[in-house]
Amino acid sequence: MLKRLCLLGLLVTPVGAQDLWKAYGQLFQKARYVDLSHTLEPQSTVWRGFGPQQFGPALDPANGQPYQYEKDGFEATRYQLSTDQLGSQLDPPAHWNPNYPAIDEIPASYALRPLVCISIVEQVRKDPAYSLTVADVLAWEKRYGPIPEGCVVMVRSDWSKRWGEPGLAAEPKFPGVSLPALKLLHEGRHILFHGHEPLDTDCSPDLAGEAWLLRNGYTQAEGVAHLDQIPPKGALLLTGFPKFRGGLGGYARFVAVCPSDWKYGVRVDPKADSPLPRQSRPLRWDEAKGYRTR
Amino acid sequence: MLKRLCLLGLLVTPVGAQDLWKAYGQLFQKARYVDLSHTLEPQSTVWRGFGPQQFGPALDPANGQPYQYEKDGFEATRYQLSTDQLGSQLDPPAHWNPNYPAIDEIPASYALRPLVCISIVEQVRKDPAYSLTVADVLAWEKRYGPIPEGCVVMVRSDWSKRWGEPGLAAEPKFPGVSLPALKLLHEGRHILFHGHEPLDTDCSPDLAGEAWLLRNGYTQAEGVAHLDQIPPKGALLLTGFPKFRGGLGGYARFVAVCPSDWKYGVRVDPKADSPLPRQSRPLRWDEAKGYRTR
Repeated sequence: MLKRLCLLGLLVTPVGAQDLWKAYGQLFQKARYVDLSHTLEPQSTVWRGFGPQQFGPALDPANGQPYQYEKDGFEATRYQLSTDQLGSQLDPPAHWNPNYPAIDEIPASYALRPLVCISIVEQVRKDPAYSLTVADVLAWEKRYGPIPEGCVVMVRSDWSKRWGEPGLAAEPKFPGVSLPALKLLHEGRHILFHGHEPLDTDCSPDLAGEAWLLRNGYTQAEGVAHLDQIPPKGALLLTGFPKFRGGLGGYARFVAVCPSDWKYGVRVDPKADSPLPRQSRPLRWDEAKGYRTR
Repeated sequence: MLKRLCLLGLLVTPVGAQDLWKAYGQLFQKARYVDLSHTLEPQSTVWRGFGPQQFGPALDPANGQPYQYEKDGFEATRYQLSTDQLGSQLDPPAHWNPNYPAIDEIPASYALRPLVCISIVEQVRKDPAYSLTVADVLAWEKRYGPIPEGCVVMVRSDWSKRWGEPGLAAEPKFPGVSLPALKLLHEGRHILFHGHEPLDTDCSPDLAGEAWLLRNGYTQAEGVAHLDQIPPKGALLLTGFPKFRGGLGGYARFVAVCPSDWKYGVRVDPKADSPLPRQSRPLRWDEAKGYRTR
């Protein structure tokens, strides 16, 4: 019996505390990866209180000329960014309160967390300024189970589908997250942070939710995309951002790791991942758009 | 017997193809997270062929004045970056060849991979221009087993411990990775990409390794830090970078997920992760350094 149990143990060995590679083979190699970040362009939707962004080819300081494939064998890019509150990003609390961590002071353990997605798409269809309520959170839990401690909760509104529309950032009404819902998520469920698609937490005049979060040491994700492509529960979130010293916003990459039978997302593909496939047309600098295109 | 087996099955249930949350609870909640990226500063080590970087407080375009906590309730940061080949970064092949993907064209499945670390610290102590050889790769495999397909291989040299030293980027000798070793890793072992601590792949006059990689559609990580704090095998690598349209370098965040009994790295800490702890001193703009400090 003992021998049989041991054999069974080998066959159905649980992923042990040390076996991250085994977990990769069993789960992550077959998972589907959904990108939740917008692509950054000079025209990206940004709060009207910040200036414009400019991209350009990197210059040789010796002569001020751009590096070019033909003459130099490589190119690179220079950026003038008016703000670190740009694109899909992570707000460190120091954005509003200098006594709390800046972007480079956020722990590395933020990089991987369970991911919950609560949809308010139906509610927003009736009221474009709808904010996630306590009742919405409780209804999600009734259907899917308790929101796990330490997870990230994304609030899906589909507002991000209009990303890039001229004037979008100046519209007075957009979907949000109410302060009571934020307090339930943080003080009742002890989540790591929440995220939303618009550039602010809600459209109240005093930004009550954002003020409470950032003044009290909490982070939040803003400008998140493609929340229509992730499951309500069961996925993981990968969060990465460059670590600018004393920075107050994170140009962040959010990627959802979804179960292998999920309907969206790219798969690991040994044939196409490395080397990456040759593209149909070469990149070239597009003066009108202000970035490289094919 | 069947009942016992079923019961045992419940007790030692393997992480199923769909149970990413269970894997988080069993493995990632207890793991240790090691940050492999340098913090970006205006003084960060950069190739001398690129210009300087400048950080500044974000300005109100209405009056050109910086936003300030006292009068505006928040601050943000503006950046003038002379290159996207800055700090810890990921080279997309389009950095050298416009027919291959730019940084925004890299698949989301790059975000999570098994991590191998091969040390050449001893060899570099004798020869500061030492490059990883085929024999080094084979010696690693003899000791630790086959390098898994699709993984990331970081080459530890400890060069990064000198990061920020004036003149470092202009030194003609630095540790590298030889072209035969790269060919073995890619064509023989089918890794996803390799990474190294210096700013270039090797210090040969024709940059043979980098040229072969990027001209053929491979990516590579550069300027990687803290490789002395990860195990030779058994960890996972998280890779995140902002997705600049047509960009040719990635300001990347690399985080190693290490086993729970590893000696380095931060742990998930529900008491300190959210809200983040109040700091001993407030952030303020340091004119001499050109960034915010405490």
